[in-house]
Amino acid sequence: MGELNKTKCVSCSEGLPPLAERESEELLKEIPEWVIVSEDGVSRLVRTFTFENFREAMAFAGSVGELAESEQHHPKLVTEWGKVRVEWWTHAVHGLHMNDFVMAARTDELFQEL
Amino acid sequence: MGELNKTKCVSCSEGLPPLAERESEELLKEIPEWVIVSEDGVSRLVRTFTFENFREAMAFAGSVGELAESEQHHPKLVTEWGKVRVEWWTHAVHGLHMNDFVMAARTDELFQEL
Repeated sequence: MGELNKTKCVSCSEGLPPLAERESEELLKEIPEWVIVSEDGVSRLVRTFTFENFREAMAFAGSVGELAESEQHHPKLVTEWGKVRVEWWTHAVHGLHMNDFVMAARTDELFQEL
Repeated sequence: MGELNKTKCVSCSEGLPPLAERESEELLKEIPEWVIVSEDGVSRLVRTFTFENFREAMAFAGSVGELAESEQHHPKLVTEWGKVRVEWWTHAVHGLHMNDFVMAARTDELFQEL
C-alpha cells in the first residue's frame, strides 16, 4: 500500500477543493480494495470488511473508531452481522482529501493486524 | 413504553410470517420514536439517536452491540459523527417480529440511561 499507511492526517480548511479525479484515481492504486462512491454529489472511499460474526465486526468498528478519534477524522461505519462498511470523506472539502486515502490505508492496516 | 422493554427475545424460526401490518402499527405506539422503513421489501424499525460528538456515538453503538450479543439478535448500526442509526428486523421472517419491538424498546432504555 505504498507509504500512505505511514502518514498522518494534515489539517484542512473549509473551502479547499477536493482532490481532482485524476489525483484520486492515482491514489486509489495504493488502496486497491477501496472504491470511490458518490453520494449526493460527494465522493467517498468505501470498503466492506467481512468477519465471522457480529462480535468481530463490532470489535473492528471499535478499532476504526479509535483510529478516527486519534486523528480527529471521522468515518461512517455501517456495522451488521459479519460485516463493517467503512466510508471516508472530508466534509470540509465536500469530497475526497488526501487524509481520506491515509485513513483508508490505515484502516486496511488495522484489518491486516487482526 | 409499556412493558416491551421488560421482555426478552423469543426464538423464532425460518419460514414464520412477519407481523401483520396492523400488529406492527399497534406495537409501534409503544415505541413512538421509531419508524417502519421498508428496504428491498423487508420492513425494519429505524431510529436515529443523536450525540454531542463521535466518541459518544461510538460508545452508544457499542452498548447496543452488547445488548444485541446478549440476546443474539443483531441490528444494523450506522455510526457517524454525532449520530447512530439503529435498524432492527428479523432475517428469519423477512420482516418484523415481536423481538424487533422488544429490542427497539430496550435500545430506547439504553439511550435514556445515558
